Amino acid sequence: MSEYRVVFQPHNKSVIVAEGENLLRAAMEAGVHVNASCGGAGVCGKCRVIVEAGSIEGGVTDKLSPGDVGKGYRLACQSAVHSDLTVRIPVESEVDASVLNKLATPRKTARIHDVDFESLKDQGLFIPPVEKRYLELPPPSDSDRLPDVTRLISYLKAQHNEHRLVARLPVIRKIPDLLRSSGFKVTATLARPVLPGRKSHIINVEAGDTTGRNFAIAVDIGTTTVYGQLIDVISGEVAAQHGEFNAQISYGEDVLSRIVYAEKPGGLEKLHQVVVGTINTIIRKIVRDSGVSLDEISSITLAGNTTMTQLFLKINPRYIRYAPYVPAATLYPPITASNIGLELGDHVSALVYPAISSYVGGDIVAGVMGAGLYRTEDVTLYLDIGTNAEIVVGNKDWFACAACSAGPAFEGGGLQFGMRAAKGAIEDFSIDPVTLEPMLITVGNARPKGICGSGLITIVATFLELGIIDNRGKYHTDLASKRIRQNDGVWEYVLAWAEETQIDRDITLNENDIDNLIRAKGAIFSGYQTLLEEVGLTLDNIDKIVLAGGFGSFVDLEKAMVIGLLPETDPEKITFIGNGSLLGCRMSALTNRLRRDVVEVTRKMTSFELSDTPSYMDHYVASLFLPHTDIDLFPRLKGRMDARRGSSQV
Amino acid sequence: MSEYRVVFQPHNKSVIVAEGENLLRAAMEAGVHVNASCGGAGVCGKCRVIVEAGSIEGGVTDKLSPGDVGKGYRLACQSAVHSDLTVRIPVESEVDASVLNKLATPRKTARIHDVDFESLKDQGLFIPPVEKRYLELPPPSDSDRLPDVTRLISYLKAQHNEHRLVARLPVIRKIPDLLRSSGFKVTATLARPVLPGRKSHIINVEAGDTTGRNFAIAVDIGTTTVYGQLIDVISGEVAAQHGEFNAQISYGEDVLSRIVYAEKPGGLEKLHQVVVGTINTIIRKIVRDSGVSLDEISSITLAGNTTMTQLFLKINPRYIRYAPYVPAATLYPPITASNIGLELGDHVSALVYPAISSYVGGDIVAGVMGAGLYRTEDVTLYLDIGTNAEIVVGNKDWFACAACSAGPAFEGGGLQFGMRAAKGAIEDFSIDPVTLEPMLITVGNARPKGICGSGLITIVATFLELGIIDNRGKYHTDLASKRIRQNDGVWEYVLAWAEETQIDRDITLNENDIDNLIRAKGAIFSGYQTLLEEVGLTLDNIDKIVLAGGFGSFVDLEKAMVIGLLPETDPEKITFIGNGSLLGCRMSALTNRLRRDVVEVTRKMTSFELSDTPSYMDHYVASLFLPHTDIDLFPRLKGRMDARRGSSQV
Repeated sequence: MSEYRVVFQPHNKSVIVAEGENLLRAAMEAGVHVNASCGGAGVCGKCRVIVEAGSIEGGVTDKLSPGDVGKGYRLACQSAVHSDLTVRIPVESEVDASVLNKLATPRKTARIHDVDFESLKDQGLFIPPVEKRYLELPPPSDSDRLPDVTRLISYLKAQHNEHRLVARLPVIRKIPDLLRSSGFKVTATLARPVLPGRKSHIINVEAGDTTGRNFAIAVDIGTTTVYGQLIDVISGEVAAQHGEFNAQISYGEDVLSRIVYAEKPGGLEKLHQVVVGTINTIIRKIVRDSGVSLDEISSITLAGNTTMTQLFLKINPRYIRYAPYVPAATLYPPITASNIGLELGDHVSALVYPAISSYVGGDIVAGVMGAGLYRTEDVTLYLDIGTNAEIVVGNKDWFACAACSAGPAFEGGGLQFGMRAAKGAIEDFSIDPVTLEPMLITVGNARPKGICGSGLITIVATFLELGIIDNRGKYHTDLASKRIRQNDGVWEYVLAWAEETQIDRDITLNENDIDNLIRAKGAIFSGYQTLLEEVGLTLDNIDKIVLAGGFGSFVDLEKAMVIGLLPETDPEKITFIGNGSLLGCRMSALTNRLRRDVVEVTRKMTSFELSDTPSYMDHYVASLFLPHTDIDLFPRLKGRMDARRGSSQV
Repeated sequence: MSEYRVVFQPHNKSVIVAEGENLLRAAMEAGVHVNASCGGAGVCGKCRVIVEAGSIEGGVTDKLSPGDVGKGYRLACQSAVHSDLTVRIPVESEVDASVLNKLATPRKTARIHDVDFESLKDQGLFIPPVEKRYLELPPPSDSDRLPDVTRLISYLKAQHNEHRLVARLPVIRKIPDLLRSSGFKVTATLARPVLPGRKSHIINVEAGDTTGRNFAIAVDIGTTTVYGQLIDVISGEVAAQHGEFNAQISYGEDVLSRIVYAEKPGGLEKLHQVVVGTINTIIRKIVRDSGVSLDEISSITLAGNTTMTQLFLKINPRYIRYAPYVPAATLYPPITASNIGLELGDHVSALVYPAISSYVGGDIVAGVMGAGLYRTEDVTLYLDIGTNAEIVVGNKDWFACAACSAGPAFEGGGLQFGMRAAKGAIEDFSIDPVTLEPMLITVGNARPKGICGSGLITIVATFLELGIIDNRGKYHTDLASKRIRQNDGVWEYVLAWAEETQIDRDITLNENDIDNLIRAKGAIFSGYQTLLEEVGLTLDNIDKIVLAGGFGSFVDLEKAMVIGLLPETDPEKITFIGNGSLLGCRMSALTNRLRRDVVEVTRKMTSFELSDTPSYMDHYVASLFLPHTDIDLFPRLKGRMDARRGSSQV
């Protein structure tokens, strides 16, 4: 796909975008403010720009007079980039370009973690858990009466140098007819031992040469959503993927309500069955989408938080809920997938990622394994941010982990107008520092409906940097804007007026909302601060940050540092792995090294119960400011704030 | 129970019998002939004896006149021994006592194999496959948040020095509630690894201290009958046992007809289900009889012939039936008992004995293991005689085995009046060498109904030694007895006249019947002769003989040597192990040594297909004589025959 350079004037800022990119988003990407209060839906008519050079598609609507169109005006949110462009923003406020440039920072999201299979192979880290071997066997005769399985094993030894093999019962059941119907030309599927020197299991036999087709399934059992991937274990690629809501949602929204439901008569069985049902739905979908047959799938790896894992395995999660919060087990033996109800061949083993504690589960362990934290000297901070945030710090020699209840703010919960990152959610934001008029971009460029987590962070960070709120998250009520107002005694900023929204109400962010965010980020910041302190380190020792979870993908990293969610660091050190749980499962499907190493990793990982750790409360209270009571922890922000106070525009 | 000495005159032979023993059976035991043609039912009135000293119970019937009773006459078959006795047999024939003594040999059955647990323990051969450990655990607290399973494993290590433990899923499911309901006082059941250095599996946890109760099940899956035993694995004793007809009988009497049925649509599934049903019936019965709860049973071991094993495991046995007669597999992996349909706890593993070939199955391997053949330098001949006879020869270093189709003669099949050893079956026999009148003893002392295998051997051996038949099994038709007659052109001997029987027909043994027996014993004799020859040995190298199967228990060993079924040897070298398959399963329930050693034994065992072994047919033809073409193979018999020809009475 072609890429084009867009230069914005008078800022003289440029950005490279893909062909067809929305021009309003391009401006936001470049750190250029354009008033826009309808999220990019073309309704408010405010995002007027003048195309000075190059050509765009669209941008002409009835919000523009024919005269304006003649002068080159277009609505940025309705324009798509199709060449290099020069675009002028009619600066309505009185700030000049040099000030604008100081105020806005380009959007910077985390680098996507890239799995470099070739490099991993070169390092000898790939030990296929399942391999196939093709054989042409002599048929039995009066002078060669080897039993069918013995024949297969003998020739695997002779032709493929395979030793220490045992056949599973489904193979023994299948082999007599298969050998004869295939003319004694078969492919054997071998499941490799996790520990060296142990036996390989012959888990399947197929007619003819099927060595080119070998698949595995990876599943993340999320409390809300279950994601599955079909992995081509020969190429390492994802052949198909699909997500479904966890059908357990009907029995409770969150982990605790699921545990409560599981305590009812039949409740555990029910929750077990419906999540297995959800996984089966996903398996059917990805198998259908990819044209792979069920018989070609040789393994499945699953991970979830400790409660999801126990419910999947039909283990009573009751004691996770009561102090001292003890799970039944943290290591789970391999099980036969069909025995647990999964609609896979009876040769398929299911591997379930081990947990660390009741609140740091297999999903986190999978993420740590998938991201390779355990193979490097670098001290890495791993954050999986949701209602419950899980934190891991460590390197190849040690790990410390904890979970903290961040509250649902990052998932858009607990706010007046909070929502998930669905269509109409305000996901990006800028403000004119003089007029205080907003630039809103919503998911899907739809009229605003609410605010999602990444939008919230950007709004609050912007407010803080421009002095619209103070470091306690309180509005400067003396600013001249009708958007800053008191409502039922609570101060708020109006992001979008009722007529611009989908909900016919003003969408606002009030001080209670900001307070929720401060408490959420404070819980997380003080969480990793405490963990580091417990192992004798400080924030300065963090070499890398890995963000996991749906949340991390859209977060503007600089903004997350401004509010004190992330420590101030070079954004290049931060990577985003997406669904870490799924990544770990995928990697386990590809190499036995992970299966071998994961037990060691769980042994090296010390779980801290933050509520038991005396320093945690002190750190937490100190972090209930923007970015923190101790501004010296955020020197870059401090410098910008000092400079801004010096220029005194605001 | 008291024992008494009974002296028979004029023979001056004595025997020690238990109180209450039947006097006719005592005479047979002593090798004393008493005419008796109704099997001991008190009907023919022929077994008149005079009690000269001591007292008996019974013996007076209306078959005796008051005068006879006054003279001390009693019917032996109606008399029970209750003191030391002297009994005179009214010798009606003209042979004197010295001749009588030459003709009859005392009945000698095989010594019952005795399992000497203490000696095996002393030799270090007992490694319990399943052990229990009692623990009192500290409950979790804020300062001790070990997960439940980790807690159990840690304290098993601390309190019992148990290492390398893994918990199975059913244990993980059970442990949270069990720990708390038991006050953290539990017993863990540990399944030991078969190979040293591997992991022990925690397969069960129970509340409180249950270390004193630990049970296993042993099952022989016979084609006709399935036997089960409940084993107390602490004492090694059999706590309960029960046999049931294999419900597969409705779908075919023998192995081949079962295979044919299994080829029909749904046939394999059906046969699998019904034999599992039979085993479940047995389990319910022995559990109920012994008052043991299902939860106290930790393992089950099963053995059967190759077809029975494949049907139990739902493995298509089709190719066992077609040349070159190849089984699907000979080693079967351990399976979860409940997965295969057995009504046992889901912590129970089922171990199925490995087979050698299509016709030497796990039942034979189990017998070889149970009888300890693989632990001695002695070359042992192991015979399991039924319709198919299985033969093993070998010692701790090597084994050779084969199966041969003996035909059903030893099970009473294929004869005019053959029957199983049920009530009314002629099981023992003697003959008056002059009058040729018989002495019949039947199972249950009922009127004769037919002839069972051990009776057949004794009759034919007696006929041969007394010159009633020749070495081709043909009657000497010139003997003066109305019992020897021609019927439809075939010569026969009338064992019982119609009015003495239960079936209102003369019960006879004709030359076709004898021919059947000769072919059956010839197949077996030539079978082990061939096996020995193949490994470079001869009959003289046999140090011990082990007889297995229901057949062996009643066989008069000397008679079996006379007909050439067994090689001539000291009867003291012969032991009877009963159901070898069941014995092997019982032993496997008691020691992992067997589980470890059995794979090695199957590797050391060379299977011969006799029909492929050129010398077999020559040996077979040579053995179609009584005892054999080469009488020098039976020097003791030759000596007796020569002596008898010298005395020339007959």
